[in-house]
Amino acid sequence: MFTGAQVCKIILKKNPSKLLVLSRTLCVLKGHIPRRSFLYIPGNEERKVSKATGLNSDCVVLDCEDGVAANRKEEARNTIHNLLGQLSFGLSEVCVRINSIETGLAEDDLRATLTAKVLPHSIVVPKVETVEHLNWISDRVSSIFKSRTKRLGLITQVESALSLLNLRAVCQHGTSEDRPFRFEALVFGSDDFLVSIGATRTEDVKELIHARQSVVVHAKAYGLQAIDMVYINFKDPEGLQAQAEEGARFGYTGKQIIHPGQIDIVNKAFSPSEEKVNWARDLVKVFEKQDSIGKGAIDYHGSMIDMPTVQQARNVLRLAEATGRK
Amino acid sequence: MFTGAQVCKIILKKNPSKLLVLSRTLCVLKGHIPRRSFLYIPGNEERKVSKATGLNSDCVVLDCEDGVAANRKEEARNTIHNLLGQLSFGLSEVCVRINSIETGLAEDDLRATLTAKVLPHSIVVPKVETVEHLNWISDRVSSIFKSRTKRLGLITQVESALSLLNLRAVCQHGTSEDRPFRFEALVFGSDDFLVSIGATRTEDVKELIHARQSVVVHAKAYGLQAIDMVYINFKDPEGLQAQAEEGARFGYTGKQIIHPGQIDIVNKAFSPSEEKVNWARDLVKVFEKQDSIGKGAIDYHGSMIDMPTVQQARNVLRLAEATGRK
Amino acid sequence: MFTGAQVCKIILKKNPSKLLVLSRTLCVLKGHIPRRSFLYIPGNEERKVSKATGLNSDCVVLDCEDGVAANRKEEARNTIHNLLGQLSFGLSEVCVRINSIETGLAEDDLRATLTAKVLPHSIVVPKVETVEHLNWISDRVSSIFKSRTKRLGLITQVESALSLLNLRAVCQHGTSEDRPFRFEALVFGSDDFLVSIGATRTEDVKELIHARQSVVVHAKAYGLQAIDMVYINFKDPEGLQAQAEEGARFGYTGKQIIHPGQIDIVNKAFSPSEEKVNWARDLVKVFEKQDSIGKGAIDYHGSMIDMPTVQQARNVLRLAEATGRK
Repeated sequence: MFTGAQVCKIILKKNPSKLLVLSRTLCVLKGHIPRRSFLYIPGNEERKVSKATGLNSDCVVLDCEDGVAANRKEEARNTIHNLLGQLSFGLSEVCVRINSIETGLAEDDLRATLTAKVLPHSIVVPKVETVEHLNWISDRVSSIFKSRTKRLGLITQVESALSLLNLRAVCQHGTSEDRPFRFEALVFGSDDFLVSIGATRTEDVKELIHARQSVVVHAKAYGLQAIDMVYINFKDPEGLQAQAEEGARFGYTGKQIIHPGQIDIVNKAFSPSEEKVNWARDLVKVFEKQDSIGKGAIDYHGSMIDMPTVQQARNVLRLAEATGRK
Repeated sequence: MFTGAQVCKIILKKNPSKLLVLSRTLCVLKGHIPRRSFLYIPGNEERKVSKATGLNSDCVVLDCEDGVAANRKEEARNTIHNLLGQLSFGLSEVCVRINSIETGLAEDDLRATLTAKVLPHSIVVPKVETVEHLNWISDRVSSIFKSRTKRLGLITQVESALSLLNLRAVCQHGTSEDRPFRFEALVFGSDDFLVSIGATRTEDVKELIHARQSVVVHAKAYGLQAIDMVYINFKDPEGLQAQAEEGARFGYTGKQIIHPGQIDIVNKAFSPSEEKVNWARDLVKVFEKQDSIGKGAIDYHGSMIDMPTVQQARNVLRLAEATGRK
Repeated sequence: MFTGAQVCKIILKKNPSKLLVLSRTLCVLKGHIPRRSFLYIPGNEERKVSKATGLNSDCVVLDCEDGVAANRKEEARNTIHNLLGQLSFGLSEVCVRINSIETGLAEDDLRATLTAKVLPHSIVVPKVETVEHLNWISDRVSSIFKSRTKRLGLITQVESALSLLNLRAVCQHGTSEDRPFRFEALVFGSDDFLVSIGATRTEDVKELIHARQSVVVHAKAYGLQAIDMVYINFKDPEGLQAQAEEGARFGYTGKQIIHPGQIDIVNKAFSPSEEKVNWARDLVKVFEKQDSIGKGAIDYHGSMIDMPTVQQARNVLRLAEATGRK
């Protein structure tokens, strides 16, 4: 979401005559959906899905994939088809995660989802490894919708070595204009990724630092949100909090979760702290005052502050405003 | 080696009708050669080569390159040519490391190696930086063998900044069907790499984390083994063990060594611990029981376990079996 | 600068008949300019620019960009135009940083700079993200100079996610023969980069490890210098020193600074220590003695030393010599 902000920054700072472009950018920012907490709910468990309507998770992801056993796939897809039309999820965005394309199950999942009385906001597609996978999605979505209006958001998962190597091509292809979906976010599927490279999870996930940071860079280069790995031990809130906060510092905008008890911790980690909001407000004020009298590098409590830091502060204020609505 | 396992996973989990493909994959896995310990022996030192026949190193690499002084190159190549036909290395795989292509020495090294009475299993080519280097190898191997049967394994070394940037192209080119060799592994040549980027080695090798993890990702995306950096201080077994265990956690399948005293530590580090094997066996049992009664996400001692974790456990059991033979 | 050294190494070691090429490489190395300290001075502040003539910074970068407020841009460019012809900066290299191309200010900055009575050694261009940006620079430089003689050095800044993804293409394009500039260095603009990916700076800059190391690999693959991030707190010399030393260990050859008080610390961090120079001299001596009697792997105080380590030692001696001149 900072890509729009970046654009604003350059425009505002250097080229006031381009205000027309700026206002278009702001429209895009207004439409931004926070996805701090990205909660999976097994699609076949009607009770859990119903319960999710009362949760304050930014996203509720009705799952057809790893959370559903092989002999429950049909049940999950039918349950999702029916409940999408019956339930209201309040301020949460509703997504459906279909099975991966290679399984042969994805087409039926997609048809059940896209023929529901009420569409989900986005579909989540796991194990997207190639441009051909994106083309498969485009073809199916177009054939079901029979038009190229971008009614559907697309969120893809990076879960293998090959997926990481192809990520640039996938981002470029998926964000081009003539797709029948809006490409919105990348999800880092760390567990499948670990298996793919034969690595072993450790507490500080040092073994994933290259992949985890590389996913953020790709997402942000193409204006996509980046949703971080699952913290698997749902009985360890401190561990969850530490990993969520690190993900936020790395540039992730949200985190996958597997239990409702993880929502508040994750929402907090991906929201700016009150202290940070105060710092941002103060710094922006100091900057605007010194800038108006023509000083370049700003002295702020002994540190030299320049435009990138000012822009970081402005991003903090923007995020605070967006998530304050909830 | 986990690429085959990955394939199995997808097939087993989602598409039982593809069992034909699965059995072919299992054949590939059966043919897998463990390369936990990758021991260099100077090719001109006949006494050391002979002694290596009694060692339990997974690979014995008869070296023409950095372990051999400039005025001993001819001697090394002749010694290797003769000893390949005379000695038996037991369960160890025998490899020959030739000099790099740019030196002008590689052609003679290769001819001496490939005209021996008994062929090595694989050749190791240092400083492979471009697709042109692979083409050079293809041409020479084809001209010596006069046929395109894949009798020879190929292991290449990543040792420079340019080599890392070209690694994807090299992996793609080298694994295509019509090469006269079987591309089997990437070796991370950290010392030359450090020189190439002007970096300085430290105890925790933080300066190499990007390159070291990037090599693993490339290897695994193309079904290759990944063989980690040398631990240079051969009188520090604790340091060796720590670095070897970290390499294993990162996804490396083996490690280069320069002294027989390093073999056992490295073999152990790249084998699963008894504790890990027990964990894997138990987890797979719990999973199969819950899966058979249709539960999706599995509760295993308070953690939510899904398919990737199950697959990690299965990989542990497979590796334990493969290395248990020795 | 180690790329030339690398070339030397391969040639010296393996192919003495190529001494002709070697001597050409040595010429390149002789022309090498140390850029350990890379000090920004706001171009509109005449007093600070004049004061910079007496500093021992390797580079003095007269800034039109982030150090200059929007309403001082014209003043900065005129001041630089005039002072370039009037002042002598002693042994320091003089560079001019123009505004980024997207701002619409770069053309006037460039014209003012390149029509000065005395040219700067290099121009620094921030936010270079694409090959098109390089083409823009080529076109403007050619049209001002009306010839393709490479009179001007070019240093570009990597400051966004997209810039990092395009870095290989930019390096390849910029180092090709028919450019009207000499591409000399990459600067890691960490603060804008953090904003671009939405990350938060921490003390140990773990959030930047992927980008920071990736920039070094790209630079060194194309024979460019790599200039590290700014340490923003100019009242914390210990923090500066630690970060500068880490940058040097990562392979960076210099560091951006924003205050004259940072020069000595940074010059020292990017120069080899006396201890290191002594180690290098001793190791090279031991190596040359053992190599002359035909020993391959060298035993040096219990460690096996091979060519890469010897080459590292030689690089240390070469850097000591180059910076000893100052």
